[in-house]
Amino acid sequence: MNVNISNRELMQTIGAAARTAARHLALATSDQKNQALNAMAAKIRRSAADILSENARDLENARARDLKPSFIDRLTLNEARIEAMAAGLEEIAALPDPVGQTIAEWARPNGLRFARVRVPIGVIGIIYESRPNVTADAGGLCLKSGNAAILRGGSDSFHSSSAIIACLQRGLDAAGLPRTAIQMVPNADRDCVGLMLEGLDGAIDLIVPRGGKSLVARVQADARVPVFSHLEGICHVYVDKAADTEMACKIVLNAKMRRTGVCGSAETILIDRAGAASHLKPVIRTLIDAGCEVRGDAETQAADPRVKAATEADWPTEYLDAIVAMRVVDGVDEAMAHIARYGSQHTDAIVTADQSTADRFLKEVDSAIVLHNASTQFADGGEFGFGAEIGIATGKMHARGPVGVEQLTTFKYQVRGNGQTRP
Amino acid sequence: MNVNISNRELMQTIGAAARTAARHLALATSDQKNQALNAMAAKIRRSAADILSENARDLENARARDLKPSFIDRLTLNEARIEAMAAGLEEIAALPDPVGQTIAEWARPNGLRFARVRVPIGVIGIIYESRPNVTADAGGLCLKSGNAAILRGGSDSFHSSSAIIACLQRGLDAAGLPRTAIQMVPNADRDCVGLMLEGLDGAIDLIVPRGGKSLVARVQADARVPVFSHLEGICHVYVDKAADTEMACKIVLNAKMRRTGVCGSAETILIDRAGAASHLKPVIRTLIDAGCEVRGDAETQAADPRVKAATEADWPTEYLDAIVAMRVVDGVDEAMAHIARYGSQHTDAIVTADQSTADRFLKEVDSAIVLHNASTQFADGGEFGFGAEIGIATGKMHARGPVGVEQLTTFKYQVRGNGQTRP
Repeated sequence: MNVNISNRELMQTIGAAARTAARHLALATSDQKNQALNAMAAKIRRSAADILSENARDLENARARDLKPSFIDRLTLNEARIEAMAAGLEEIAALPDPVGQTIAEWARPNGLRFARVRVPIGVIGIIYESRPNVTADAGGLCLKSGNAAILRGGSDSFHSSSAIIACLQRGLDAAGLPRTAIQMVPNADRDCVGLMLEGLDGAIDLIVPRGGKSLVARVQADARVPVFSHLEGICHVYVDKAADTEMACKIVLNAKMRRTGVCGSAETILIDRAGAASHLKPVIRTLIDAGCEVRGDAETQAADPRVKAATEADWPTEYLDAIVAMRVVDGVDEAMAHIARYGSQHTDAIVTADQSTADRFLKEVDSAIVLHNASTQFADGGEFGFGAEIGIATGKMHARGPVGVEQLTTFKYQVRGNGQTRP
Repeated sequence: MNVNISNRELMQTIGAAARTAARHLALATSDQKNQALNAMAAKIRRSAADILSENARDLENARARDLKPSFIDRLTLNEARIEAMAAGLEEIAALPDPVGQTIAEWARPNGLRFARVRVPIGVIGIIYESRPNVTADAGGLCLKSGNAAILRGGSDSFHSSSAIIACLQRGLDAAGLPRTAIQMVPNADRDCVGLMLEGLDGAIDLIVPRGGKSLVARVQADARVPVFSHLEGICHVYVDKAADTEMACKIVLNAKMRRTGVCGSAETILIDRAGAASHLKPVIRTLIDAGCEVRGDAETQAADPRVKAATEADWPTEYLDAIVAMRVVDGVDEAMAHIARYGSQHTDAIVTADQSTADRFLKEVDSAIVLHNASTQFADGGEFGFGAEIGIATGKMHARGPVGVEQLTTFKYQVRGNGQTRP
């Protein structure tokens, strides 16, 4: 890669400082980390006016560049969003500390005692876009799990993120932890992202991208270190013949329409042909009444004249909008075949009163999260009880599904003996 | 990458067949998989004469090419090694099936019930060198963990591996499982390795290299999919001032000399200065009496005239031979600093009667395996009680330490509800 030399030096300095900080953090006590998190929250509350005025600078630049309203919305901070950031840090402080937990313990006939113990991963690079609150969330989750963080936010939120980082570093100070435990890349050159994806000569252990599909795709394509991410959430709800119609309508509506822009929102509804006579019309009506566009195969179109025609391009599409694809299938087998072909191994749900059909679906669908009689929008670390998440992963290594503090750790084996040698 | 078109087509066909087989295997019962493993073992025993005659062809080629005796030894099969392969498959059959195990279960206040359940990873590519027995070990471990395997052995062991693969595929047949569950790349072009490292268009989920440092280094540098591996095992034994001298000598001797060519053999001995008066001479004498060359710093040399001078190049060296580096350090802190600087995060041991010093070492040394009062040569899946291992991993993602059948699985979340929607 062709990189500006001063950027390379800058990033190497950041990487080396993060590695040193990570060794400190791995040995920090829970009290120290929680003290830092609570001090960060307090500092953010006290600095609300400063943060808002820095955010105003970012917003002014964004408006001058005529960016889209949805972009401006993600960039915008207000009193409530600042309070949510502070409260989020306090919630992370209240979570159990995963570091040092014993995951498994056993002994061998020769007297050796084995323990598998959680330890931090090391240095985590977070690459994100315009949401300034990712700065606090990601920094807090990395700290709690004992990892040093290198944050590289979008240039559009630079002033806001800098003001937030200053609060986080004051919190680290207050607890006697190194400020370099949470660093921000102080420069918007895209070079710096490339260097992070190469791992900064072994200084970065893991990359977490937070943003749209093009950001995640670039990270997945170029990263030379492990990445926790999902490219897209093409989530399905399969309505089995043995579904209760009312429950099916309620779950489909929530899975699609509660929030259409989140990765756990449903994009395709599959209706069992054997139950179509009772389920198809009510499900379509529920969605259309709620303002959702329905694109269906011939049978779906035949059930309601308001349904538009779906094409092959609809099945692998993540709309992230009030649009849904719908198809009639021959039972759970064809539903699972459809999901295997078009899904993204993120989150898929079945609605049925038949326990054995549900068990087959939960066993056989190869997605990170599979649900029975519940909405796909439960794909969220908070809803899982993880307290907070840095994102959702669809890869098969290490973390799958919501990535909370526990998933930001790895483990080591501690072996205790009394002089054993191997025969 | 510039690749011969027919090789690309060949590998795509193998990849697609493996992906289809993986879907079958994920749903295979434990009985079916164990039946296949036992049938494989029986077939290998019955085919011993065939396997030996194919091995003789490989050996003839190797001798004609004047390859090193150590290489010829790794390539050589005999009755005992064939029996060990068969017995190994039966041992894998006897292990508990990790697939379908519930790792964690919990419920949320809204009534949703969560289960984290083990599932296979999918398709695993194994790239190895001359040892033909890797064919049976790796094939068996992948099958037990529900994964399809694509095996690419060295060209030098091609005939031996082909004869073994034929036995494995007969075992799959006997249990009604697809032969494509364990495939061998039928061609020695290096192209094929490159294509595997690229992941065969998403058909390969994980690569496991089995072989020397240059093979592992190439795989780590070029792989675009996750890799379970260790580049080298620069393992340390630290002899604390509070060590029992006799135990220290016994552990150091075993850690270095039991087998010098394995990754868990010790390469550097660190002696606490405060205990050097009693420990240094006996430890050196024990090693030299056993035929080990000792290379030491000035203090080590002063203790015994037979010690050669160590240079800076010795500390990061994996000898894999009857040579050891030795250094006197200022207590556990300097020992841990040395390990952090020169170690490979593989396996490190402390010998001490002081519990709190041992606890610090086990907590603070950032290696996959840390031992107290036991030999580093216990770094082995069998010794951990994992039954069998496909290798040892030093990465921080997913698998660390010995990689057995459990480490060849991932998990999914199964969520059971009764109509819950997200507010």
